[in-house]
Amino acid sequence: MTRIVIIGGVAGGASAAARARRMSESASIVMFERGDYVSFANCGLPYHIGGDIESRDALLLQTPQSFKQRFNVEVRVRSNVEAINPTEQTVTVRNLDTNECYQQPYDKLLLSPGAKSVPPPIEGLSSNRTFTLRTIPDMDQIQALIDRDKPSHATVLGGGFIGLEAAEALRQRGIEVALVEFGKQVMANVDAEMASPLHQELRDHGVDLRLATALTAVADNGDSLTLTLSNGTSLNTELLILATGVKPETELAKQAGIALGPTGGIQVNSRMETSVANIFAAGDAVEHVDLVTGQAALIPLAGPANRQGRIAADNMLGGDKHYQATQGTSVCRVFGLTIAATGSSEKALLKAKRPFEKIYVHPMNHAGYFPGASAVSLKLLFNPDDGTILGAQAVGKDGIDKRIDVLAMAIRANLSVFDLEEQELCYAPPYGSAKDVVNLAGFVAANYLRGESDICQVEDVLAPSPEQVILDVRNPPELANVGTIDHAINIPLDSLRQRLDELDPTKEYLVSCMVGLRAHVATRLLLNSGFKAKNMTGGYKTYQMVKAARAVAP
Amino acid sequence: MTRIVIIGGVAGGASAAARARRMSESASIVMFERGDYVSFANCGLPYHIGGDIESRDALLLQTPQSFKQRFNVEVRVRSNVEAINPTEQTVTVRNLDTNECYQQPYDKLLLSPGAKSVPPPIEGLSSNRTFTLRTIPDMDQIQALIDRDKPSHATVLGGGFIGLEAAEALRQRGIEVALVEFGKQVMANVDAEMASPLHQELRDHGVDLRLATALTAVADNGDSLTLTLSNGTSLNTELLILATGVKPETELAKQAGIALGPTGGIQVNSRMETSVANIFAAGDAVEHVDLVTGQAALIPLAGPANRQGRIAADNMLGGDKHYQATQGTSVCRVFGLTIAATGSSEKALLKAKRPFEKIYVHPMNHAGYFPGASAVSLKLLFNPDDGTILGAQAVGKDGIDKRIDVLAMAIRANLSVFDLEEQELCYAPPYGSAKDVVNLAGFVAANYLRGESDICQVEDVLAPSPEQVILDVRNPPELANVGTIDHAINIPLDSLRQRLDELDPTKEYLVSCMVGLRAHVATRLLLNSGFKAKNMTGGYKTYQMVKAARAVAP
Repeated sequence: MTRIVIIGGVAGGASAAARARRMSESASIVMFERGDYVSFANCGLPYHIGGDIESRDALLLQTPQSFKQRFNVEVRVRSNVEAINPTEQTVTVRNLDTNECYQQPYDKLLLSPGAKSVPPPIEGLSSNRTFTLRTIPDMDQIQALIDRDKPSHATVLGGGFIGLEAAEALRQRGIEVALVEFGKQVMANVDAEMASPLHQELRDHGVDLRLATALTAVADNGDSLTLTLSNGTSLNTELLILATGVKPETELAKQAGIALGPTGGIQVNSRMETSVANIFAAGDAVEHVDLVTGQAALIPLAGPANRQGRIAADNMLGGDKHYQATQGTSVCRVFGLTIAATGSSEKALLKAKRPFEKIYVHPMNHAGYFPGASAVSLKLLFNPDDGTILGAQAVGKDGIDKRIDVLAMAIRANLSVFDLEEQELCYAPPYGSAKDVVNLAGFVAANYLRGESDICQVEDVLAPSPEQVILDVRNPPELANVGTIDHAINIPLDSLRQRLDELDPTKEYLVSCMVGLRAHVATRLLLNSGFKAKNMTGGYKTYQMVKAARAVAP
Repeated sequence: MTRIVIIGGVAGGASAAARARRMSESASIVMFERGDYVSFANCGLPYHIGGDIESRDALLLQTPQSFKQRFNVEVRVRSNVEAINPTEQTVTVRNLDTNECYQQPYDKLLLSPGAKSVPPPIEGLSSNRTFTLRTIPDMDQIQALIDRDKPSHATVLGGGFIGLEAAEALRQRGIEVALVEFGKQVMANVDAEMASPLHQELRDHGVDLRLATALTAVADNGDSLTLTLSNGTSLNTELLILATGVKPETELAKQAGIALGPTGGIQVNSRMETSVANIFAAGDAVEHVDLVTGQAALIPLAGPANRQGRIAADNMLGGDKHYQATQGTSVCRVFGLTIAATGSSEKALLKAKRPFEKIYVHPMNHAGYFPGASAVSLKLLFNPDDGTILGAQAVGKDGIDKRIDVLAMAIRANLSVFDLEEQELCYAPPYGSAKDVVNLAGFVAANYLRGESDICQVEDVLAPSPEQVILDVRNPPELANVGTIDHAINIPLDSLRQRLDELDPTKEYLVSCMVGLRAHVATRLLLNSGFKAKNMTGGYKTYQMVKAARAVAP
């Protein structure tokens, strides 16, 4: 009989417990959870506050009773594991109700304690109007304050997943919301220009967005808080949600002599084994290997946590399963927009000093002639030597998660942009196009890599050399209605062939249109006619996104 | 200067013309189209009839004028190519307006004539109340009849993509619709049990669905038609749409001595070259290589046609691009349901004598606790030796195309079910689950292949041996409310561990629940306790689908 002890009863721990029982009827499985709840839907918390999820019970996926009944797993909630004793193969547990301590022996131990919030280093955050949003009690307390005080103003600190979801939830409750973000963009895991449509969306939905702004002081006035911001302004608010990010819970691991990695997460091998015999770890507390860069990374996501728990369970019971690296596929709803990403961002590649090239496309999510079509703004990052896909990010109203899922699969399969050209995806007018967004991204990148159509970036167009001319091939009404590109001359595509004599063969033309498609036709026409030309990838839409990202000021 | 002639101005031809111009400014490009329109949205025709697409003009993607202006391509509509003369390298063209014939020389010729309807071999189909739905004039004529006669009843013959879309469109116009299908299922490209939810959906939306029924005679009464059906009944109808399938347009090719393949399509190599020098072909007229079986196949789909046209254009201009095999990824909206498929169906694998195994899952499209969740019924076919994915089909309300797109990518990358376990897909409550549908399908198939959980099929449960006992582990209220499995005993999962003594160790238990998840837990419990057990893959939901498919009668 194998005695399995699991510390932490949410994603990784709960997955491991259920899997362990399925693999062995004879194992003894005990799961400790410090809080009151196990296996709750932590990703659903903001949606219950916002009202999307009406029933609180819907968030409680399993209870200690259901774990016992279905899986014969003994769940001890309100039980804080205070020490791991590797030599004795026991853990020291404190019952938070009785305050008694006891030793629990294990043959195999799984550490799945998760991550903890990292509040900003300022005072005044202990007010009873200040919360994190990571647990059922967090949510209950926020709900209770809203129900009791009917606050007119709330502030969310941090524009990551939880911050964005919390801001939306509070707006749905009719509360004025300020979102204060230290960085120059929300959703730090995507690149700045891809996040910029979110900024507009937040403001369009009444969120008072303060980018590049830190919270420097909090004063508690009893019925409200006064927040002092780094730009010298202050906010009067009745509710403050801290969503400034998390770091691995590693106190127990450190105390037990378990090695941590360079990122501060628990170091594990692909079997999810820590440096100490018979101790495994999974979930937000562990250090991941980034699939694209191969570097150590902290990637606190539910999917990887679940799969790691499953693999750890198998291995604790004598199996030999191996976890693959993590690619960080993620998605977030921000009011009417969806943003999603997989693989490495441009800034991550720059940081990792990995060579890359990037292209942008903005095709419709489905046939443009079918009602309800909306643009999918997709950024694709790839290896400039062999075209291997390194990362993708997309933002838009609809069909975003689908394209990122397809590209996540492509990255995992180590495919290249040439493979994207060949993909055969679902097409009927309500769902896609005969040339899907993913195909188009492949066409653009592969055209570039084959030398068929050189590209340039918005960065180039914003700082052209004296030998370069910016050529906008849109029609004059588009320029008037949508906006112009600084210093561009305008020759509409459909008259370009007739007006080639206006061009200077000694110049290089940086060609732009709305999304890059007409500019591609124009670039080819120019190249085939003996001119030097490059297509500004993604056209005016990308230009706008980059300019908006650059214009951010506190 | 290369003189390119293109026969056929829709998907493959139009793509080739545009691409050819982008590749060469000096080529002369002439495109002949027998009809009045080029580059129209043939996939959109039913949706204009149904009213989804309000503007007829939205369907006309390009015109001869726009092709000339943007691409310097000369489009000659109402121009029937009557002969190809390979020795002279000319085509004989009849101007359908003047009835004059002339020779047009070519250096490279692209045949992209598409496919033509195959009407059933009966008389009376030439009535002016009988139409196909493949062109703008077809659509215009149907619209005109509806506007003029305000028919109360219409009949669609054939339950493939166009037949289903036409039936829905006519219902949206308030017309009573009979859908007559020769086979025992609609959507012949998927397996019968996967199509059965469509049958219910059609009937729920008032379609008078006649399966396993042939049209045997048509009598024209002037203001209506009398249709005689193979089951002896008759239908009085005012409008008949023939959607009984298509076959390649190969008259011209045959006459020119171009080789056809065993399927009757034009034979091409991966460069899209026919057997005759300097003649290329693309689109619905060509024979494809099936990606999964490697066999010759006719796969008339827009995506492949477009990509083939693009590749042919490159090669006509001296390139060396190669078209990969076709996997037949497709999707169709049927009222509130979506059905999609990629790779081989079970019947195709049986026909090709390829070994396979199959599993079914029915998870929610996104987190079950988030409102609006609906089931994705997914069938996954894979190689029983190494787990290579051979095909996938899915039906449900939402998230169907996404999962099939991801699996299409997996098939194209030659991935296995073990790879599906590892996929890291978008997860947030409105979009998916931490264990996505695709992961779950991978878990189930991989558990089976690793020998961790043997499976059986509904077919086994419908015909158990005397040594087998069918065990339903659902709760009694579910059985009462949802339905029971014939001859099954019932022990709810959560009391199974306590009631093992009721079981007979000499028997093999075929275990079922609602979707296969609880049955998996029960199967593992039984196996770990020394019993013989198999999980009926897909549970009662699959059982219902299979039984419904088997119950079809004319």
